[in-house]
Amino acid sequence: MNDANRDQPRYDHIEGRNAVYEALAAGRPINKIWALSPEGGKKPDPALLKILKLADEQGVPVTRVPRNTLDKMSEDRRHQGVIAQAAAHEYSDLDEVIAKVRSEGRDPFIVICDELKDSYNLGSILRISDAAGVDAVVIPERRSVAVDSNVAKASAGAVEYVPVCRVTNIANTIRDLKKDGFWIAGCDMNGDTTYDKADYAGSFAVVIGSEGSGIRDGVVKSCDFMISIPMTGHVNSLNAAVAAGIVIFEAARMRREGKRT
Amino acid sequence: MNDANRDQPRYDHIEGRNAVYEALAAGRPINKIWALSPEGGKKPDPALLKILKLADEQGVPVTRVPRNTLDKMSEDRRHQGVIAQAAAHEYSDLDEVIAKVRSEGRDPFIVICDELKDSYNLGSILRISDAAGVDAVVIPERRSVAVDSNVAKASAGAVEYVPVCRVTNIANTIRDLKKDGFWIAGCDMNGDTTYDKADYAGSFAVVIGSEGSGIRDGVVKSCDFMISIPMTGHVNSLNAAVAAGIVIFEAARMRREGKRT
Repeated sequence: MNDANRDQPRYDHIEGRNAVYEALAAGRPINKIWALSPEGGKKPDPALLKILKLADEQGVPVTRVPRNTLDKMSEDRRHQGVIAQAAAHEYSDLDEVIAKVRSEGRDPFIVICDELKDSYNLGSILRISDAAGVDAVVIPERRSVAVDSNVAKASAGAVEYVPVCRVTNIANTIRDLKKDGFWIAGCDMNGDTTYDKADYAGSFAVVIGSEGSGIRDGVVKSCDFMISIPMTGHVNSLNAAVAAGIVIFEAARMRREGKRT
Repeated sequence: MNDANRDQPRYDHIEGRNAVYEALAAGRPINKIWALSPEGGKKPDPALLKILKLADEQGVPVTRVPRNTLDKMSEDRRHQGVIAQAAAHEYSDLDEVIAKVRSEGRDPFIVICDELKDSYNLGSILRISDAAGVDAVVIPERRSVAVDSNVAKASAGAVEYVPVCRVTNIANTIRDLKKDGFWIAGCDMNGDTTYDKADYAGSFAVVIGSEGSGIRDGVVKSCDFMISIPMTGHVNSLNAAVAAGIVIFEAARMRREGKRT
C-alpha cells in the first residue's frame, strides 16, 4: 500500500485552538502559525498563550496578525484566533498498524468507515476512536471524505494520534482482514444482533455505514454479522457519529471487561 | 410553570426534508410550505413527493418556488428543496410530563442539559432521547440554546416527539425532582462511578454539561452522584452529543434489562 498518500495536497490548513494545540503537542511538523495580535483592552487568551509557548519551544515561526486577516484566511470563520499550516496528513499502512499492535501482544481493534460524506462525522469518529483505544480507522480512497482541516478540527486533535488508513476497496480489505483472523461486524438498523449482545473479542473490526444509505450491500455480505442499536422512538435513527460512539464504546468496554453475562 | 412559552417567537422556520416531514407526520400545525418547483430534466425527488402528499392530506398550502427563492429564504442554504413555516415550538410542563408517565405505570427517565450552547448538540440529544425512550429533555431558560430551526433540523424531527421543558433554574429543578423521588446522575470527566457501573433504575435524571465547561459546580453539588466514561486516548474528550448518546443508551439498556452483573 505504497500509494496511501498519493493525490494528497502538500499542505494542511489547521484552524482553531484545540486542533492547532494537538497538532503541536503530537509533534506534527508545522510550517507556520498565524495568531491573533493582542487586542487593546482584552486579556490575553490563556489557551492561545499555551499554543504560543509550545510553538516557541518547538521553533515554529508565529506571525501575529489582526482579526480580519485571520477571518480572510479562515475557511469557515471559526479559527478562534489561530491558524497553522502543516505538512499534509500522512495516512498509515493498515498492515503495518496491525503488525505493530500484535507485536505489543494485543489484538487489533479497527473501525472501518464505508463512504462517510460528512467531515464532522469522520472527525467525531476519530475523536471517539482515540478515546476508546481504537487502533486504526479505515476509509476508502474514493467516495469518502478525506482527512482535511475540517476533519482535523472536528476530531479536536485526535487526528494526530489515531492512524487513518486509506484503502482502494473496503470489501477487499474486509476479506483480507478475515483471512488474517479478524471478526467483522457491520452496524445497521436491521442488524439481527443487538450491540450489547455481540462478542467483540479478539482481532475485531466494526464497519460504520454512510450517513444516508448505511453500509453498501456488497460490504454487508462480507461482514461476519450485523449489529443494531435497539430504538424505541418515532424517528428511529441516530447520527452516524453518535451510533458509532455507542457501538465503539460498548465494544471497548467488552474487550476490557469481557462479554456481558 | 405557566411561563414555559413566554418570550418565544410566534413562528418557527423549518428547513430540510426530514425536519419538515416529521413536523407534518407529528401533526404539528404548519401554516405554509415552500417547495422546489419541478426542475427540467430531473426526476421528482421521492422524499419531496412524500412531503407534498402528506401536506395535501392535511390541507397545508404548498407554494412551488424556484431554487434561488428557497436559497434566499434559507437560513443556512441546506433546505434540501423544502421550507415550512410552523407555529413556534411549544415547551412542555415538566410536572405534567412526569404525572403522565407515572399514570402509565412507568418511572420517568429525564435528560437535563446544563447550558448547552450548540444547537447541533441539543438537536442530537433530542434525536438520541427519542431513540432511547427518554420522557423529557430539560433546558434552562437562560444561557442555553433554545429550540429553534437549527435544533429542529439537527434533531431530524425528534423535536416533534420528545417533550422539551424550560425551567428557570436547573439546580432548583434538580432539588424538586429529588424531593419527588428521582435519582440524579451528573456526567463529568471526573465522575467517580463509570457509566456502565451506575444504577439507573427508578425515577431517574441524567445531567449533561455544556460543551466547554461541563456541569456548573452548583449543579454538580445537587446531583446524587457523578458518572464518567473511561477513556484511554490522548485527547480524552468526547463531543457533548456523543457522550450523551453513550450514557443515555447505557441507561436505557439497564432500565430495560437490569443492571450488569
